[in-house]
Order: sequence, then C-alpha cells, then structure tokens
Amino acid sequence: MKQLEEKILAEGIVLSNTVLKVDSFINHQMDPVLMKEMGKEFARRFQHKKITKVLTIESSGIAPAIMTALELEVPMIFARKRKSLTLREGLITAKVYSFTKKEENEITVAEKFVSPNDQILIIDDFLANGQAALGLMEIVKQVGAKVAGIGIVIEKSFQDGRQRLNDAGIQVESLARIASLENGKVEFVKEEALAGGM
Amino acid sequence: MKQLEEKILAEGIVLSNTVLKVDSFINHQMDPVLMKEMGKEFARRFQHKKITKVLTIESSGIAPAIMTALELEVPMIFARKRKSLTLREGLITAKVYSFTKKEENEITVAEKFVSPNDQILIIDDFLANGQAALGLMEIVKQVGAKVAGIGIVIEKSFQDGRQRLNDAGIQVESLARIASLENGKVEFVKEEALAGGM
Repeated sequence: MKQLEEKILAEGIVLSNTVLKVDSFINHQMDPVLMKEMGKEFARRFQHKKITKVLTIESSGIAPAIMTALELEVPMIFARKRKSLTLREGLITAKVYSFTKKEENEITVAEKFVSPNDQILIIDDFLANGQAALGLMEIVKQVGAKVAGIGIVIEKSFQDGRQRLNDAGIQVESLARIASLENGKVEFVKEEALAGGM
Repeated sequence: MKQLEEKILAEGIVLSNTVLKVDSFINHQMDPVLMKEMGKEFARRFQHKKITKVLTIESSGIAPAIMTALELEVPMIFARKRKSLTLREGLITAKVYSFTKKEENEITVAEKFVSPNDQILIIDDFLANGQAALGLMEIVKQVGAKVAGIGIVIEKSFQDGRQRLNDAGIQVESLARIASLENGKVEFVKEEALAGGM
C-alpha cells in the first residue's frame, strides 16, 4: 500500500537491523485517516472471503481492526493479554511468547463471541515471528471456527513469521512488507519479487 | 445518545449495583457501526473547541477515540498502562488507581507527541470514579497543553467521577448516563434532571 510505505519512509525510525519505530502514526500516536484507508484496503483484499468477524489483540491491533470491521460491516473482537490467568471460565486461551519483551502472555477471548460457523479475519499491526498471529489462530481453532485470512499492517519479511503462516495455508495480506532495515534504511520487498511468488 | 442507550438495554448485563457488563459491543467485542456513530457524536459535541488531538488510554478507549479523531481530522494518542516503569526518558507519566482492580498503574505518553499549543479532547469508555480521566488530565497539564473537554461513552452518574471533573471546570459529555443499576435494572439519568443542571 503506497500511502503506508510513504508514511513509513517519512516518519518511521529505524532503531536497529530488526526494529522499526512507527509510534507517530501506528502504535502510540495514530493517524485516523490512514487507519481508515488501511481498513478499506484490508476489506478489499478479503472481500471474497465472507468474513463474519474480525479478531485482533490489544492494544495496537484495535484501530486497524475496527476500521476493517467497519468496512466489512461485521463485529470486531480484541483478545486480551495477561501475564497468567487464574479464572478461565468461559474463556478461550492461548499462549503467546514475545521475543521483543522476552515474556509469555496468555491471550483470551470470551467463548460466547466465537462460534464454529465463523469465518474469521485476523488483523494485527506487526508480523515478525508470527507468535501473536499463531496465538490468535490457535484460539479460532479451539472453537472450531475458520481463519479466513490474516491482515498485517507492517510485515518484517526478513523474519520467519510470514513463512510460518504461509505453511499453515492461510492467505496473508501485509500492507507494507519490509525486506531489510540494514544500515538504518527501510527497504521494501520489490514488486517483481512478489510477482515471482516470494 | 439514544442508539447507545437502546444497545445498553438490549445487551448490557447488570452484574451488581455498580457493575455493568458491555463486553458484547464496547470493551471486548465491538460494534464498529455504533463506534463510528459515537465518534460522530463526540465530534459534534466538541466541534466548537478547536481540538488538535484526541487522547485516550489503552485498550477500550482506542476504538471510540480513533473514530472521534477521524471525524475531527486530528491525530489520536493512546496512553500506555504499566504496573511501574523503570525507563522514563521522553515520557510523561501519571498514576492511575483502579478501584475495580485495586491496583495502581502508571500511564505514559511520549513527550514529543504533545505540545503546549494543543487543545486536547480526552475520550474514554467508562467514567466511574474519574481516576483514568484525572490521570490523563494530569499528563496534559504537565506539558502545559489544554484539556478542551472529556468525552465518555458510559458514565456511572451514581459515582463521583463526573462531579470531580465538573469541579475541575471541564466540559464533560457522556453518551449514556446511568442513574442506577439497582435491582438488576439499568436506569438512565432523566432529561429533565439534566435540564435542571444536574
């Protein structure tokens, strides 16, 4: 998505070879007009999938997910993150390990909001190792519902999350795919590489 | 806001004299169309205030805040919540005590996103004792910016948060004002009471 790539080039801050800071428009301060455009784009890319619900994880996934759900005219659910849970009644849970924070969280969704008939679109802000997306997929699987696709705002294509999700046979759509952050510079995956089935 | 009151009556679950559960459309599963309408309504009620930024707190404030920011065409910022912080560089912090969870959190906003010239609209999902709103106001005050108003989705008018914010001289607009949850029944503040300057 050109508009997002341009914003990343203009405002993204490369902190290291693996870390891109986008807190001026994605995950602390947010650009609502860009969020709306991203929601439209996700809706367009998954319009053939008969999505019944959008699922994300707090906190940074909520804005792109609500905009996508608005376009698709379906409810949105956000999974909650907790260090560990004592009360599990009525909750579906999965474990998610964060490589960045080096900690494991439990993510939860209330059972009553997901049914086996649901076709679920998972939305998240970042895809790196795929742990959050795999945790959300695990939750959908436990209910017997279907993961209709995964929409990612920014994919770090140099990490292995995308491959893991592809291996699971899921349609993954990332609005910006970053090939490299080396030498303090953002490089996107080239269109030709994409067309070649990268 | 009639549409919200009707939704609360249809789907809200009264858990006790002080607790109303709205997790089917506000703070776990979300109704994106209702969120959009609420954003429009907040924008309408504060349209004369020359808002430059919308500020909220993760996680449940994000959806109504992004919809409000979209209508007002200004950036949105969400404060992050942490048990306690070690690194504070570049952050504005305030303490927020949660009566529900009986714990104190620090909330933080990156300094660089708020300037003394900002006219800030604070948005949150619930107003009970006003702790979250007062914490957000404290952050705005530390930068020397102005709180232009506070928009609340659901106000528990039988608790003292509203009075505290009124005492601070702030325009508070709540889309639903709950007078009582006694006997398992939701009662809204009556229009006449409002007109009388309650």
